[in-house]
Amino acid sequence: MGSHQKGERGGSSNGSGGGAMVVDKGVDFAQYFCTYAFLYHQKEMLSDRVRMDAYFNAIFENKHHFKGKTVLDVGAGSGILAMWSAQAGARKVYAVEATKMSGHAQTLVKANNLQDVVEVLEGSMEDVILPEKVDVIISEWMGYFLLRESMFDSVICARDRWLKPDGVMYPSHARMWMAPIRSGLGDQKKSDYDGAMNDWDAFMEETKEYYGVDMSALKKPFSEEQMKYYLQTSLWQNLHPHQLIGTAAIIKEIDCLTATVNDILKVKSDFLSSITFENTRLCGFGGWFDVHFRGSKVNPAQREIELTTAPSVDNGTHWGQQVFLLHPPVHVIEGDVISVSFTMDRSKENHRLMEVELGCEIKQSSSKQPPPFRNKYYIE
Amino acid sequence: MGSHQKGERGGSSNGSGGGAMVVDKGVDFAQYFCTYAFLYHQKEMLSDRVRMDAYFNAIFENKHHFKGKTVLDVGAGSGILAMWSAQAGARKVYAVEATKMSGHAQTLVKANNLQDVVEVLEGSMEDVILPEKVDVIISEWMGYFLLRESMFDSVICARDRWLKPDGVMYPSHARMWMAPIRSGLGDQKKSDYDGAMNDWDAFMEETKEYYGVDMSALKKPFSEEQMKYYLQTSLWQNLHPHQLIGTAAIIKEIDCLTATVNDILKVKSDFLSSITFENTRLCGFGGWFDVHFRGSKVNPAQREIELTTAPSVDNGTHWGQQVFLLHPPVHVIEGDVISVSFTMDRSKENHRLMEVELGCEIKQSSSKQPPPFRNKYYIE
Repeated sequence: MGSHQKGERGGSSNGSGGGAMVVDKGVDFAQYFCTYAFLYHQKEMLSDRVRMDAYFNAIFENKHHFKGKTVLDVGAGSGILAMWSAQAGARKVYAVEATKMSGHAQTLVKANNLQDVVEVLEGSMEDVILPEKVDVIISEWMGYFLLRESMFDSVICARDRWLKPDGVMYPSHARMWMAPIRSGLGDQKKSDYDGAMNDWDAFMEETKEYYGVDMSALKKPFSEEQMKYYLQTSLWQNLHPHQLIGTAAIIKEIDCLTATVNDILKVKSDFLSSITFENTRLCGFGGWFDVHFRGSKVNPAQREIELTTAPSVDNGTHWGQQVFLLHPPVHVIEGDVISVSFTMDRSKENHRLMEVELGCEIKQSSSKQPPPFRNKYYIE
Repeated sequence: MGSHQKGERGGSSNGSGGGAMVVDKGVDFAQYFCTYAFLYHQKEMLSDRVRMDAYFNAIFENKHHFKGKTVLDVGAGSGILAMWSAQAGARKVYAVEATKMSGHAQTLVKANNLQDVVEVLEGSMEDVILPEKVDVIISEWMGYFLLRESMFDSVICARDRWLKPDGVMYPSHARMWMAPIRSGLGDQKKSDYDGAMNDWDAFMEETKEYYGVDMSALKKPFSEEQMKYYLQTSLWQNLHPHQLIGTAAIIKEIDCLTATVNDILKVKSDFLSSITFENTRLCGFGGWFDVHFRGSKVNPAQREIELTTAPSVDNGTHWGQQVFLLHPPVHVIEGDVISVSFTMDRSKENHRLMEVELGCEIKQSSSKQPPPFRNKYYIE
């Protein structure tokens, strides 16, 4: 579930070294969960046709996984996946939802005459107790660039506690992708940054002249704050496929049946990308994800379904892509090879937000090599 | 300090009946304090010339209150008030700031060579321990419509613990005002609401047709959610004086030297307003505040300064005014009298946000009386 909510930094999550950090539940609710209690937000996700089609088809083209079976929907929201599971023939469906949206899910279950099958439980996945283990865990847990929101932790918790030994995960697999892009955004953001700094200079002069206080000592921290805001924070974008200027690479693969929280704390990938555009500017990188519904090895899907959030003209999703800008852009030509080292970790202040380091070396066919660089980014 | 930050609803503050509620500090930090840690936000407030002029003049035109005295700046932010107090001759100034902005305040104090006088303390006013009581408490604590953010609680706490018996408060007095207004906003928001509901109808049809789930049971809660969002949430506006169509009334008066938290938990006022426009539409009410720097009875100001946020062409402030919309608007003519009963309480979920009830009866000079009504609003 991609959410535009900015995870406000600050707060009191305590790091406890390796492994998942201890999270203050009140803070987590105030910062994260609360936007999902709004019907408007649920409607946005329910109106995403690509998302809806993928889950709908994954379920109804694979009824053998659901007929007469027990199902757990993690983070059920309005209950749509739970209701589809029931309509596909499930014997029993547990729909777990942490926010007051659970009340609306209950209303819908009743209105759609599925109350004999679907049981809505309000609470967090970590706290809820089910009366039995389940055959299927279904969840729409994906955030921007897959892992923003860190909701998969809750799915792992559900799986480890409630999935039967031969149970299946819906989706079964997930991958993160990156590719070099061209974009006018970098110029725009740099221009906004310059404007903010000019504004600051005028502000400093006025404060000195009219109010007798010298603010120049804060110019550097202000510029760092503005730089972070304009050029170091990843942006939500709906990229056009034409903006991809080089080959895309898979930077993370997750088997939803076996992945541990430890496996997903860090994303680390060194990859190469060949420029496929004749003559252009490398303006940054775009990141996206896909998930697949393949069932398990012992219990495979009859029809494998893919949900991709790659740049697309007609099949865009509410997730868009995440864009990491480079400024100034670098001139590249077809055949140039970009060597990227990408690292993504959870933010210490808020485990649902990410910090990225992106190192880049351009091996150009011409003799002139631009110097390698390493940038820091924040997924907020 | 007016802040555009939406206090996200949800969270875990516990109500404990009458009196101030117990607030989870982590939640409070995540929801409220964190925006003040940004230099961009401090700069916005420091660029508000009306605000800056008022405090600057209040201090420097009343140096007798500061020369050789001790001062406490509550919620010091960048430290501007603390620095002015030192420049006005204070012997010692304690600048208390809860966020990491305190580090920047320290930098500025040093850069302006005031470190012998100004001591910056990072922490909340409720927790901090000072080495002595003070002669003056200065603070810029006012939120939208004065009380949003409920920061005055912290000033009261400071005053009760640290102000000497004959000490003075800067500002010394505060008042809330309301007046009937005309505005095109109500029509706009109603139109937005209608659009959202049409959108919902289309969404319901598609979800039923393509996905076999009937969402109609949620139409009513969705409409309530949208109504609240579009028409029942007070808006920040920079009203033009021409938009005031009737006499303004004082709905709350606060003596900063004696007010208790209990005094400010509830604002309740019944007032009358006479329409002063020949022929117009009553589209809602505007609310604003003013504060005064008068010193105390035993230790008065030499020059009394006023800071007002009333609608103004040239002297607008970052606080703007808060607008409570009426839809549909009511036709009124000069001489009509509006009888208003206004109540404002703190939100149970978040003590820094407000819930308003506004009852209205229009005594029209013509024989036709529109029915009285009572609306609920949210200051978010």
